[in-house]
Amino acid sequence: MASVRIREAEEGDCGHILRLIRELAEYEKLSDQVKISEEALRADGFGENPSYRCLVAEVLPAPGEPQGPSVVGYGLYYFTYSTWKGRNVYLEDIYVTPEYRGQGIGSKIIQKVAQVALDQGCSQFRLAVLDWNHRAVALYKALGAQDLTETEGWHAFRFEGEAMRKLAGK
Amino acid sequence: MASVRIREAEEGDCGHILRLIRELAEYEKLSDQVKISEEALRADGFGENPSYRCLVAEVLPAPGEPQGPSVVGYGLYYFTYSTWKGRNVYLEDIYVTPEYRGQGIGSKIIQKVAQVALDQGCSQFRLAVLDWNHRAVALYKALGAQDLTETEGWHAFRFEGEAMRKLAGK
Repeated sequence: MASVRIREAEEGDCGHILRLIRELAEYEKLSDQVKISEEALRADGFGENPSYRCLVAEVLPAPGEPQGPSVVGYGLYYFTYSTWKGRNVYLEDIYVTPEYRGQGIGSKIIQKVAQVALDQGCSQFRLAVLDWNHRAVALYKALGAQDLTETEGWHAFRFEGEAMRKLAGK
Repeated sequence: MASVRIREAEEGDCGHILRLIRELAEYEKLSDQVKISEEALRADGFGENPSYRCLVAEVLPAPGEPQGPSVVGYGLYYFTYSTWKGRNVYLEDIYVTPEYRGQGIGSKIIQKVAQVALDQGCSQFRLAVLDWNHRAVALYKALGAQDLTETEGWHAFRFEGEAMRKLAGK
């Protein structure tokens, strides 16, 4: 099994991250919604007040192998705010490319997010998952997550496009 | 009908905001989860890098009435990041105290959030609602929101407490 390390993303990883963002959206059957560019990812994540933080999972070549490390997964998160509990972490995306699944890389990313959250004084972190993604649902539950839609009835709502412009009177 | 204005919250509003946060949690039957203090709201929302922004709905006294304006609702939001569409707004809480409902104050808060989102170059804003809160669900849908849990199957997951510490190895 290849050796994998989880590290903070650098600006030079944005091309790899965008490739994986597109793979994830395709898996979620929602790839028509991806409008982001590598330039936007660079500007938004690596300026003075970054809008997000990102972890990448990197496969290290075995000794003697010529090729450099390869990014095979990512976890992209940011800080949110709960009026009940203060500052929290939201894991917007977590993804491991298919050929590297089943090796615990997703769990390692989640563990690192939990460490970041605790280090930053956050009492929780959240994420959203599609109900038909049984593999992900099973993993998160096995790691101790609670499905708040199931247990409390939370639904996610979105305003966008024409509805948003109409509301804003624009 | 009393005259109402929606304005950005100031630090001095935090006591009113906390009172309304507690009312909302009680309405949501989850008031045991509120751990926030007025001091934390002040520090987290009104420092150099605020963790949240807040709008308040203020009832203005009629001419000749002695009492000053009174805060009867709030909308608390922050900026998030979509790997599909970039920077977005998340409306964490929206609440109007019972005796002022049915006057369009909630809609005014949502309109203002839509304006903020557009002004900040965001293509959408999101919020979460409890499925049994039929009045709120009906309002958001009437204003053009899409229920993403219903249409795409998104579920909200949370890691916290012992599960999070175990993950972090702490």
